Amino acid sequence: MDSPVTLACELLRPLPFGSSAAESESVNGGSPRYVLKARGPASASPVAPYQALPVQGPVVEEERLPGITHHLTPALPVLEREDATRKEMDARIRQVIANYTQKLAERTQHHLGYPYNLDFDFTPLEGLQRFSINNLGDPFIESNYGVHSREFEIGVLQWFARLWEIDQDEYWGYITNCGTEGNLHGILVGRENLPDGILYASRETHYSVFKAARMYRMDAERIDTLASGEVDYDHLRARLATNATRPAIININVGTTVKGAVDDLDRVLAILAETGYSEERFYVHCDGALFGLMIPFVKRAPLVTFRKPIGSVSVSGHKFIGAPVPCGVVITRQRYVEALSSDVEYLNSRDATIMGSRNGHAPIYMWYTLTRKGYEGMRKDVERCLRNAHLLKAMLERAGVRVMLNELSSTVVFERPTEEAFVRKWQLACQDDIAHVVVMPNVTLSKLEGFVADLIASRARATTTAALRIAADARAIRDDELRGASDDDC
Amino acid sequence: MDSPVTLACELLRPLPFGSSAAESESVNGGSPRYVLKARGPASASPVAPYQALPVQGPVVEEERLPGITHHLTPALPVLEREDATRKEMDARIRQVIANYTQKLAERTQHHLGYPYNLDFDFTPLEGLQRFSINNLGDPFIESNYGVHSREFEIGVLQWFARLWEIDQDEYWGYITNCGTEGNLHGILVGRENLPDGILYASRETHYSVFKAARMYRMDAERIDTLASGEVDYDHLRARLATNATRPAIININVGTTVKGAVDDLDRVLAILAETGYSEERFYVHCDGALFGLMIPFVKRAPLVTFRKPIGSVSVSGHKFIGAPVPCGVVITRQRYVEALSSDVEYLNSRDATIMGSRNGHAPIYMWYTLTRKGYEGMRKDVERCLRNAHLLKAMLERAGVRVMLNELSSTVVFERPTEEAFVRKWQLACQDDIAHVVVMPNVTLSKLEGFVADLIASRARATTTAALRIAADARAIRDDELRGASDDDC
Repeated sequence: MDSPVTLACELLRPLPFGSSAAESESVNGGSPRYVLKARGPASASPVAPYQALPVQGPVVEEERLPGITHHLTPALPVLEREDATRKEMDARIRQVIANYTQKLAERTQHHLGYPYNLDFDFTPLEGLQRFSINNLGDPFIESNYGVHSREFEIGVLQWFARLWEIDQDEYWGYITNCGTEGNLHGILVGRENLPDGILYASRETHYSVFKAARMYRMDAERIDTLASGEVDYDHLRARLATNATRPAIININVGTTVKGAVDDLDRVLAILAETGYSEERFYVHCDGALFGLMIPFVKRAPLVTFRKPIGSVSVSGHKFIGAPVPCGVVITRQRYVEALSSDVEYLNSRDATIMGSRNGHAPIYMWYTLTRKGYEGMRKDVERCLRNAHLLKAMLERAGVRVMLNELSSTVVFERPTEEAFVRKWQLACQDDIAHVVVMPNVTLSKLEGFVADLIASRARATTTAALRIAADARAIRDDELRGASDDDC
Repeated sequence: MDSPVTLACELLRPLPFGSSAAESESVNGGSPRYVLKARGPASASPVAPYQALPVQGPVVEEERLPGITHHLTPALPVLEREDATRKEMDARIRQVIANYTQKLAERTQHHLGYPYNLDFDFTPLEGLQRFSINNLGDPFIESNYGVHSREFEIGVLQWFARLWEIDQDEYWGYITNCGTEGNLHGILVGRENLPDGILYASRETHYSVFKAARMYRMDAERIDTLASGEVDYDHLRARLATNATRPAIININVGTTVKGAVDDLDRVLAILAETGYSEERFYVHCDGALFGLMIPFVKRAPLVTFRKPIGSVSVSGHKFIGAPVPCGVVITRQRYVEALSSDVEYLNSRDATIMGSRNGHAPIYMWYTLTRKGYEGMRKDVERCLRNAHLLKAMLERAGVRVMLNELSSTVVFERPTEEAFVRKWQLACQDDIAHVVVMPNVTLSKLEGFVADLIASRARATTTAALRIAADARAIRDDELRGASDDDC
């Protein structure tokens, strides 16, 4: 078997551009899958809700998903001035912020569970915090409000249009507040173009996709998944065939939330053709939250490109790129978005975004990072992430931890640690009996070494605790028996 | 007549709290309305789309609302590194940011048209830009991601819950990305509680409300408006009576986008009772984008409070409070939001927000400003805005400009200036033949004086140009006639 490092390097596409779409056709076929043997039933939750799950101990069935629990988070009330002088108030505020900053630094240091690149330095942009930068409305049409950053926004959109191979005069898009907004937008564009369409998405799809279906009053089909986390192609084919009279709006996961699984776009497009859906009867939205920005650099991955009949792609900006604020990009075809923007009766506006006011700082963060890193820097980040993910997997295996890593992913899935304090310390996202580490550009090898050492110690403690409990139970039973015997003696 | 200053001071409520709901019952009845006599037909657009309107000359019918025009905004492409050294690249980036900062400073200086408070100083918070702060999911339930600011968020929510008089254990809410998200959320909560409800909103309602109706596949009724911009109560009553078999979801404007008109909540509630809607058959969402934060301090305004049977209130944070990023607050009743969060089949999550990832810096900006200013500081800001709005109105009247100011508003509406360069210089939001200035805390009297002087000069230039054109036309006609006469002579 190849070493993790060779394996990771082999996965990399040499150049993000110029690689023909054809190159990506022969993908994913015979490549080995590393499947975690689940403890107990392989109970993948219907969707992947981990973002909103509270900090909690091992899942107890009746505790899962109760109604909203109020105020579990401690509050920091707005300070009342009362008799304090302005100077005293400022000192109190400074103290609050200083304590909070310290907490953030510690939490940032011990973070492995979410796909956020926490390694960024936007010092040269600090002066911009003085301004209320707002790209309200359409990115391509200047509003009268002059304090905007549309020039940066369009620069970034052009970069992505190039990445996903769509001509400058054929795309429309904008910088969103997060991956969810990208999904909400993509699916809305799909529905407006195919009003009677049924939404298809796999059970391991991010929950925002099913949230969209509910918001938009769409019929939705929840498709089974393979053990890897990919959509179950046979089940998808069967559902498409059954519903053949109605158009299809399909969500493709370019990296699922929990397992980092990549649905095979080419295979899904082939299934659509087989089941008799012509191009004007389907709309494919690609949810590329994290991996949408890594995949163009990965050789064997199914290429996401507008040269294929897809409708939209969304990706997060605070994930692989990294930013102080959540943000993202959605790109669709100009001709599709006209279904949203031409309906004067309802919208009477050229705003085809979901939000009206839009954070104008986000495009500048993205522009800055893309400019500083360039394609080559991004490629190197992807390389380091994949290499470190393979190394983490190897280390965990060596430590006797059951582990899975999808070939094209930097999301390392492993059995959920039993110590809750450990889960919280490393901010691991857990679902059912699995946890994951998402290896991002800020996750260094030495941090991973520290994590594995800590995990081994945690498991040892947990094993010791379990052993002691068994011994204590045995002792209690024996004592009971002894007492019983001596009672009998009485 | 009172002087503008006395008038503004009289409008102020002495204390935001403790004022009983009863106090606000006798409102708005006989108070004078200042109605602008419109030039030509009083053609209020069906909705108020100005946020997304491009910079354009006087409205030409066939030019209005064409499809999306591509790339009217100049782009600033992501810089290509090519042969540049790291140092050269950094110098280029610094130059771009320096030029851009200069532009922002100028644009911020000459800004009067949008309801954004551009006067803030968050220097003590600058160190926080190093962190990727994300309050993903529900504010009240901590997720495993530790780099969040939920403690600040809940502090701010508590402040608003107190402002709008709802008990701490009866509300739910969150800090949104903007006013639109607040509206999208409020109306979604309404629809989930009254699935068959019809949405009612006035023609001058912010366009996001009708966008919501379309997104959510709801039936919507567009209600006429009075000249002041308020909803036409008689028309609303008639529509409610006609549709009496179906529940009502009503959007109340607490300050319309263009004219700053405040719908009379008490009157609308009375109409609902008259037309036979019991409380479980209606849901009222109050869109308080700008004025929702001013109204608690204004004596004669209809009080927005959860002591009345309303469902939700939303307000923007970057408007009256001011912030570098768009943000807002939405508060609803805990029991209403359960309709969203309990549906495990669809959501399978306790995330009842619209967005999943949420900007964690926004709550800190709001917490900081509310703490520094306190209720007293907010009251003073409101006082200054109302006083300056009345002074601006008086100055414009003195200058012979037709002008309107709703009694409870700081939005001064006046006839649209004819020079487009002037409109752009001051970033005036225009709709049809009117423009407005929103007097915010950062708008000083001396800025208004400069603006009025500039407007007078612009009008003089425009008048001169018009006069010269008439003279030139007359001369051309005379010359033609002369030529005709001499031709005849030939």
